Amino acid sequence: MPVVVRNTPRTDLAVIDGLAKAGVATVHEAQGRTGLLRADIRPIFRPARAAGNALTCEVAPGDNWSIHIAVEQAEPGDILVVTPTSPCTDGYLGELLAESLRSRGVRGAVIDTGTRDVATLTEMGFPVWAKAISAKGTVKETPGNVQTPIVCAGAYVRPGDVVVADDDGVVVVPREQAATVLEAAQAREAGEASRRPRLAAGELGLDMYGMRDKLAAKGLRYVDYEDPK
Amino acid sequence: MPVVVRNTPRTDLAVIDGLAKAGVATVHEAQGRTGLLRADIRPIFRPARAAGNALTCEVAPGDNWSIHIAVEQAEPGDILVVTPTSPCTDGYLGELLAESLRSRGVRGAVIDTGTRDVATLTEMGFPVWAKAISAKGTVKETPGNVQTPIVCAGAYVRPGDVVVADDDGVVVVPREQAATVLEAAQAREAGEASRRPRLAAGELGLDMYGMRDKLAAKGLRYVDYEDPK
Amino acid sequence: MPVVVRNTPRTDLAVIDGLAKAGVATVHEAQGRTGLLRADIRPIFRPARAAGNALTCEVAPGDNWSIHIAVEQAEPGDILVVTPTSPCTDGYLGELLAESLRSRGVRGAVIDTGTRDVATLTEMGFPVWAKAISAKGTVKETPGNVQTPIVCAGAYVRPGDVVVADDDGVVVVPREQAATVLEAAQAREAGEASRRPRLAAGELGLDMYGMRDKLAAKGLRYVDYEDPK
Amino acid sequence: MPVVVRNTPRTDLAVIDGLAKAGVATVHEAQGRTGLLRADIRPIFRPARAAGNALTCEVAPGDNWSIHIAVEQAEPGDILVVTPTSPCTDGYLGELLAESLRSRGVRGAVIDTGTRDVATLTEMGFPVWAKAISAKGTVKETPGNVQTPIVCAGAYVRPGDVVVADDDGVVVVPREQAATVLEAAQAREAGEASRRPRLAAGELGLDMYGMRDKLAAKGLRYVDYEDPK
Amino acid sequence: MPVVVRNTPRTDLAVIDGLAKAGVATVHEAQGRTGLLRADIRPIFRPARAAGNALTCEVAPGDNWSIHIAVEQAEPGDILVVTPTSPCTDGYLGELLAESLRSRGVRGAVIDTGTRDVATLTEMGFPVWAKAISAKGTVKETPGNVQTPIVCAGAYVRPGDVVVADDDGVVVVPREQAATVLEAAQAREAGEASRRPRLAAGELGLDMYGMRDKLAAKGLRYVDYEDPK
Amino acid sequence: MPVVVRNTPRTDLAVIDGLAKAGVATVHEAQGRTGLLRADIRPIFRPARAAGNALTCEVAPGDNWSIHIAVEQAEPGDILVVTPTSPCTDGYLGELLAESLRSRGVRGAVIDTGTRDVATLTEMGFPVWAKAISAKGTVKETPGNVQTPIVCAGAYVRPGDVVVADDDGVVVVPREQAATVLEAAQAREAGEASRRPRLAAGELGLDMYGMRDKLAAKGLRYVDYEDPK
Repeated sequence: MPVVVRNTPRTDLAVIDGLAKAGVATVHEAQGRTGLLRADIRPIFRPARAAGNALTCEVAPGDNWSIHIAVEQAEPGDILVVTPTSPCTDGYLGELLAESLRSRGVRGAVIDTGTRDVATLTEMGFPVWAKAISAKGTVKETPGNVQTPIVCAGAYVRPGDVVVADDDGVVVVPREQAATVLEAAQAREAGEASRRPRLAAGELGLDMYGMRDKLAAKGLRYVDYEDPK
Repeated sequence: MPVVVRNTPRTDLAVIDGLAKAGVATVHEAQGRTGLLRADIRPIFRPARAAGNALTCEVAPGDNWSIHIAVEQAEPGDILVVTPTSPCTDGYLGELLAESLRSRGVRGAVIDTGTRDVATLTEMGFPVWAKAISAKGTVKETPGNVQTPIVCAGAYVRPGDVVVADDDGVVVVPREQAATVLEAAQAREAGEASRRPRLAAGELGLDMYGMRDKLAAKGLRYVDYEDPK
Repeated sequence: MPVVVRNTPRTDLAVIDGLAKAGVATVHEAQGRTGLLRADIRPIFRPARAAGNALTCEVAPGDNWSIHIAVEQAEPGDILVVTPTSPCTDGYLGELLAESLRSRGVRGAVIDTGTRDVATLTEMGFPVWAKAISAKGTVKETPGNVQTPIVCAGAYVRPGDVVVADDDGVVVVPREQAATVLEAAQAREAGEASRRPRLAAGELGLDMYGMRDKLAAKGLRYVDYEDPK
Repeated sequence: MPVVVRNTPRTDLAVIDGLAKAGVATVHEAQGRTGLLRADIRPIFRPARAAGNALTCEVAPGDNWSIHIAVEQAEPGDILVVTPTSPCTDGYLGELLAESLRSRGVRGAVIDTGTRDVATLTEMGFPVWAKAISAKGTVKETPGNVQTPIVCAGAYVRPGDVVVADDDGVVVVPREQAATVLEAAQAREAGEASRRPRLAAGELGLDMYGMRDKLAAKGLRYVDYEDPK
Repeated sequence: MPVVVRNTPRTDLAVIDGLAKAGVATVHEAQGRTGLLRADIRPIFRPARAAGNALTCEVAPGDNWSIHIAVEQAEPGDILVVTPTSPCTDGYLGELLAESLRSRGVRGAVIDTGTRDVATLTEMGFPVWAKAISAKGTVKETPGNVQTPIVCAGAYVRPGDVVVADDDGVVVVPREQAATVLEAAQAREAGEASRRPRLAAGELGLDMYGMRDKLAAKGLRYVDYEDPK
Repeated sequence: MPVVVRNTPRTDLAVIDGLAKAGVATVHEAQGRTGLLRADIRPIFRPARAAGNALTCEVAPGDNWSIHIAVEQAEPGDILVVTPTSPCTDGYLGELLAESLRSRGVRGAVIDTGTRDVATLTEMGFPVWAKAISAKGTVKETPGNVQTPIVCAGAYVRPGDVVVADDDGVVVVPREQAATVLEAAQAREAGEASRRPRLAAGELGLDMYGMRDKLAAKGLRYVDYEDPK
């Protein structure tokens, strides 16, 4: 029987906003290269960037009833995260649900199915990361769980985990680790920022990262095209 | 032997333009959730919107000869609908064919293969919904049927059926039902328009659609995170 | 053991720039319909257009070490061409490598895996043609060959072959044939340019290309919808 | 609203059995290379061969209720043909439905979704051609149309059309053409049977089919490896 | 840093063997239709059936080092469950690892990548459920976690959860629920066993399951082909 | 214009037969992990094993004319290797061509498209490695190159290179390296043969391969489930 879990924990929005600023690629590295969703989950418009507390939702194939249930559980700063119980590309989320989610302060949606009304969602600036775009609407016959742990696009997501999404994809940070990951992410960002001008000036990564000895140890050989001996 | 059928019936453009305005998602619902093409048929630029009478065309794999034949059968307000006899992603349609189609008043093309010259097509504003973008051109060795019933991207399409296409995908309306579907679509649009401000104001779908009793009947339970009994 | 080949031959940039102007679809036709990469290699932003000498690079799955090695071999006017030894969609190329490549005069990259930092790459105007966009970074454990012949996205590419890429896809021209292909491409372009206004004026391809007799010889029949005998 | 059409026409089983004997590849050629389903519809065991009258059925995603309705409409010699209204790979058909279908004289099933209990179906010798094998069962919430025309795996199928299925795939023959196609198929079979021993004896297709002049006309050249001029 | 967790809990093999007997489809239903892996995880030979305690393992793309680590943690009755940190189809598991696993009492493997030496594995009768078959071996450069919770083929799996696999696919049962699920599965099996002879005797599901009233309530209509009013 | 190259070099069949015995996975390792075709090229029956000189052939999409041309160039011990100029899954190769190839001593075929008549090919024991099985036949309108270098399923293949194929996939060995690769493959086989009984007896790979120190150097940690500090 489907269940809705109320009063789930959430992560501090200040931490979340810091993670959003770092971006998905950096956050993924900063938490030990974990938590990434499948790469076929793509934003419906670009550029797009959002982060928030996961508001989780399971849906039956071709049936978006649970999303209506989830809206009531939303709090400002949430990101709706939807997973189907069977693979599906139907358009679960359109203009009306987006309007409803936005009115509750929801910042965007991540959905391992399809979405629709993308012209309107683009005008509204409501970002959705989805597996497909499809005009096919859904029925309301079978409710699913809301605010329970789910697997979405290959990642394990619990209510209140942090979802960070941008043009590169979507990553989930367990809420217990959010503050620690933020620190690590900011440290990485500082490092990258210092390296970019050196590379722009022509310094080689081989030198900057001290790779030459390691490559020699791996057996890398340099030969000449004309005389490849 | 391939055949070209002349003087096929067409649907009134006033009805077609009404369906275009309603959009693919609404038209799909309005005709009982039928007629949608596969969701991997996507517009080459966005936003895009077009509707017209289906000008149907079968092509051999890697061979676009039939499209040249189809151009002669075109009338203003048509949408070219192309299906390959074997799955193919080659670029069947480019700048020259688009120019030729446009000169006959054709409004766009739907093609279950690939298209090319997409930079030019985008500049021209000639919308194409396709399965792929590919630079690979085609030969002219094997003609196929023109203006016969076809299956395109999973949908059955006859000459003069209405094709409606936008950012969400493509739907086909049988010409006999076009006027009825238009009425139903306009009624749906009015309903949606009235609901959007209520949702924007924070009213819940659960209440607006009267879902709470039905969900209880389906066994939906609300529990608390700390005490999930 | 991995090898880096130095001092590989390159093609004259004047020829390359001519090929870029002709575009991928025309170049593909001009060299006898050969050399095209798989159609799922797509530009991360549009419009995009680039051509250059292939700077080839093999990478282990999930490992971009070779790209750092390749940067040192780059010369102005190169296009980095990367192939993985196992299929992979990770984000091999991001903002820092793009900055480094650009500082060496590299004009873009073609990569049969994923890329990341696409918002930044778009701002930089550094074009990448890739199979996927993915936030997933890579490790540096296993170097691969640099500047050896490779198969990338189904095409055979040698260092110094010409890579031409635009919104329609990517094509490779063997360096020995580059000048000849350029001539043929320019001849085709002239032909297309002369035909477009005629088609825009309503002339039919059936007449312009003299197809009617050939179609009759193939058995094409014209019938009337009402009386299809 | 879903509808069940009763007393649909059927094709003579003697014709159907003749088509089964000819096999899918031959029938497809014999009817002008039309009517083939997508090649990803595969038999769950091999060898398998069946033909019958199409008993058509639409199903909602993840919901096999219509199949139960369809069983009642079955007659001996039917083949169940199922298409989902959204793409789905769930296991719609298992041991119990197969038992029920078999008790009505149904010869097999063609289903553009998944099937399950394949070990038992294999033991029973009940052939199913499906897009997937999946243990995931289905619900019974949404009935769909039974015995109406459908598109299944890219082919248009009406009740009582002939479905022929074997290890090579599935083809549909419109019932009005079944007798004519059977004649053409038998003629083709006779031709193939006469050619096989000649090819086995070493005669070349180039000579047997008289291809050499046509190839020369297409510009085919023979060159020597050592001296390719 | 990668970690190996020792002394993880396991489920009673008597319960596991009961679940194996029930089969994947029944177990999936019995635990509320949860826990199924993606349907593209298929056995390398059929029929195949195995169940055991999950021995979990994360691998880098193209790198099977962790599997060697996992072997040491194996206990009789385990099933190896492997997930890659990036999608990969390489052949991670071959004859030598299978021999090693078998010597520790491991009953089979479930792997969201590729496997190889399938002719030998088939002769050995060592069942593997995999996404692909590939001759491509792997390196040993990057160890991953062993016996930590993972997501494999879309399902969340912890060490000691029960993995049940057969020709229909793979399902995971959380170890805390294994005994309860076994009871429910056995009840379902009894029900199915009683229904099969009734269906074989020609009783309709519509009657046996009492569906006729519910279908009428859903609006299902029966019409005649000749007079469809 | 298409070309047929005659009198291409071939590799000694004794070397080829040695490579066949080693198998695809071993040969791939023995030549430095190169030369593997894409893993979706699968044998139509199992077990299957063949090796021979590559007889290369390019085909137009949906057109198998070149294969008829290739038959004449065949010599005993060849393997036909076919690549389409556009991706295609049609059934290019059936019973008659297989008979013809077999009569010339051809040992099997590798084809990056579809094949058909698989029931008959299985009875004949003529092995084909293909991307698909499809009943869809092909036309004879466009000849392609025969016995020129091609890219097939991602690998570069020249006439007379060695093709080795078994249940694990297909690998190509450049003819100049065939003898050297055979030696390396036989050395690997001997090593594997010696290790299998030790693993069967329970010896751990961690010990046999001396991995423990390397893993510690990579930071691998062992923790206890109850006390994971």
